[in-house]
Amino acid sequence: MAKVAVVEGDGIGHEVVPVAREILAAVRPDFEFFDVEVGYGLWERTGSACGEETIADLQSADAILFGAVTTPPDPGYRSVLLQIRHALDLYANVRPIQGEGVDIVIVRENTEGLYSGIEWTEPDRACTVRVVSRRGSERIARYACTLAGSRRHLTIGNKANVLKSDCLFVEVCTAEAARMGVPCRARYIDALCLDLLMHPDLYDVVVTTNMFGDILSDAAAYLVGGLGLLPSANIGKRAALFEPVHGSAPDIAGQNIANPVAAIRSAAMLLSHLGDPASAAAVEEAVHRVLRAGIRTRDLGGVAGTREFGAAVLREVGQR
Amino acid sequence: MAKVAVVEGDGIGHEVVPVAREILAAVRPDFEFFDVEVGYGLWERTGSACGEETIADLQSADAILFGAVTTPPDPGYRSVLLQIRHALDLYANVRPIQGEGVDIVIVRENTEGLYSGIEWTEPDRACTVRVVSRRGSERIARYACTLAGSRRHLTIGNKANVLKSDCLFVEVCTAEAARMGVPCRARYIDALCLDLLMHPDLYDVVVTTNMFGDILSDAAAYLVGGLGLLPSANIGKRAALFEPVHGSAPDIAGQNIANPVAAIRSAAMLLSHLGDPASAAAVEEAVHRVLRAGIRTRDLGGVAGTREFGAAVLREVGQR
Ligand SMILES: CC(C)[C@H](C(=O)O)[C@@H](O)C(=O)O
Ligand SMILES: CC(C)[C@H](C(=O)O)[C@@H](O)C(=O)O
Repeated sequence: MAKVAVVEGDGIGHEVVPVAREILAAVRPDFEFFDVEVGYGLWERTGSACGEETIADLQSADAILFGAVTTPPDPGYRSVLLQIRHALDLYANVRPIQGEGVDIVIVRENTEGLYSGIEWTEPDRACTVRVVSRRGSERIARYACTLAGSRRHLTIGNKANVLKSDCLFVEVCTAEAARMGVPCRARYIDALCLDLLMHPDLYDVVVTTNMFGDILSDAAAYLVGGLGLLPSANIGKRAALFEPVHGSAPDIAGQNIANPVAAIRSAAMLLSHLGDPASAAAVEEAVHRVLRAGIRTRDLGGVAGTREFGAAVLREVGQR
Repeated sequence: MAKVAVVEGDGIGHEVVPVAREILAAVRPDFEFFDVEVGYGLWERTGSACGEETIADLQSADAILFGAVTTPPDPGYRSVLLQIRHALDLYANVRPIQGEGVDIVIVRENTEGLYSGIEWTEPDRACTVRVVSRRGSERIARYACTLAGSRRHLTIGNKANVLKSDCLFVEVCTAEAARMGVPCRARYIDALCLDLLMHPDLYDVVVTTNMFGDILSDAAAYLVGGLGLLPSANIGKRAALFEPVHGSAPDIAGQNIANPVAAIRSAAMLLSHLGDPASAAAVEEAVHRVLRAGIRTRDLGGVAGTREFGAAVLREVGQR
C-alpha cells in the first residue's frame, strides 16, 4: 500500500492539489495520503518555509504530490523546491511536452551544474561554480537512455564548444547511449533551443544539464501554448515528487478559477511511477475527454471552475 | 577615413562577405578595406586559426566585417570567435531581432559569465566558474541603458533566484537604469524565454549575461523564422566586429546560393557604429526593397544567387 505525501504549498496549490488528490484516491482507494505543509504560509508563521521534520516526513512517502510555493520577499531565502530536490536527491527532472505534432520529454539533471550551491562573493565580483560530475552525469544519462530506449532516440543538449564541464557530460551520455543501444546525437543548447521550436518532430527525449534544462523546458513549452497544462516529475533513487510546472499564481488564488489539468497530469505521472500505468492512462484519457467535451477553465476560454472541472474528470474516471 | 578589416573566414563567409563589402564600398567610397585571414583554412595551413599578428591587425581597424568560421575537428581547439572577442575585449554582443510585430534588441554581456575560461577537471568531475563582475556588469548595463534610453524600456534577464552571481548583475543593471531614467524590470531567464516567444510586443531591449544571452538570442530568432537573416555586433571600447549570426554552412558553400542578407545587415550596423546612420538606413531599405520585389535566394523560396542578390541591393543603393 503506497503512502503519498500531499503538499499543497501556496496560492492555487490549495485548489489544484485537492482536485488531483481526489482523482488519485478514486482510482487507487488503497493509497494512503498524508498532508505536509511547506511554503510561504509556513514561513510567515514559523520563519522557515521547510523544516528538518518536513524533509523527514517527505522521505517517508513513496511519492509526493506537490502544488506550488510562493517565494517570500526575503533575500536570504532559499527556494523550498530547491531544498527538497537537494535533500531528497531528486536527480531527474522529467518534463513531457505533448501536443499537436509534439511529443518530447526533457530530462534535466536536477542536482548539480549551476545549482551546485558553490558560490562566493568578492568585493567586486560574484562567482558560481558549475559542477558536472561523472556520477551525476551517469545516473541522468541512464535515466534518459532507459526512457529513450522505449521511445525513439536521445538528444544531448550541451555547450561543449565553450564549457569543458560539458565535454564530460557529452562523453558520459554518449557512452551510456552506446552501451544501451540508444540512437543519440549531441546538439549545442543555443541551436537546440531554436531547432526544437522550428522542428519539434525531430526531437524525442532530450537530456541536458540543470540550468540548460530549466531554460529549454520553458522555451519548449511554447510549442503547447505555455506552461499552463504541463506536469513534471522529480525522481530520486527512493523519493519522487510530482508537480505542475506552473507556479502558485497568487493573483488568481482563492477564486476557483485555476486550471487543475497540470496537477491532475502530475498525479498521472505519479501513478505510472508507482507501477500503475493503466490508471495513469485512464486519468490522462479522462482529462482529454473532458477537454474535448468543451468543459474548460477560464484560461482555455471556458467557464468551468477548478472544482467543477475536477468533478467532470472524476466522473469520466469513474466510468471507465 | 575609416579602416575596415574584412574577415571572410570559412565556407559561405567567402561568398556573403564580398557582397557586403562591395555594398559598403559603394555607400562609403572613402573607407579603406584590408583583408585578414582567420579560421579553418588558416588552421589547416599553419596549425593556428588565429595568430598574434591577426589580433594586432584586427586591433588596427576602426571596425571589422566578419563572416563565419568553421570549427576544426580538434579537441584542444578554442573558437576563433571567442579568442577575438576576448583579445579585443568586445564586451557587448548586440542582436536586433526585427520582424512582423517584433522589435527586440538582445544585449548580451560578451566577456565573462560562463565564458570566463576559468575551468578545471578533477578525476571525477569538471568545473567551470561563472564570473559576474561589477565592472563587467556596469559597462554592459550602461550600453543597454543607452540603447534603451533612445527606445522604450529594459528587461534584465537573470536567474537571481538561484545564482548569487546574478543578484549582483540585477543590482547593477537596476541601479544604472535608475540613474539613466530608463524604465526597467527583472525577469527570470527561463520564464523570459517563454514570455518573449508568447508576447514579443512586451519586450524591447533585453540585457543579460553571456550564456543566457547566447541561448535567449537563438530562441528569440524563432520569432523571425530562424537565424538566417540576423545581423549582430560585438562592441568594445575601441574595436567593433560585425557578423551575421549564421555559421559558415560548409554544406552549401561554393555554390553561390547562400543568403547574404545577414552579412549586408551586419554591414549596416557597422555603418551606424561608425557614425553614419543615414547610409545604414539606406542599405537596410535597399535590402527591403529587393526582397519586396521578389528577388530572393533559395532559402526564401527564390532563385537569385548570392551575387545576383548582392547586385540587386547595389543597384537599389545606387539609386537613392
Ligand atoms: C523556482 C526555480 C528555483 C525553479 C528552478 O530554477 O529549477 C523553477 O524554475 C523550475 O524549473 O522548477
Ligand atoms: C560559436 C560559439 C562559441 C558562439 C558562442 O557561444 O558565443 C556562438 O554560439 C555565438 O552565439 O556567437
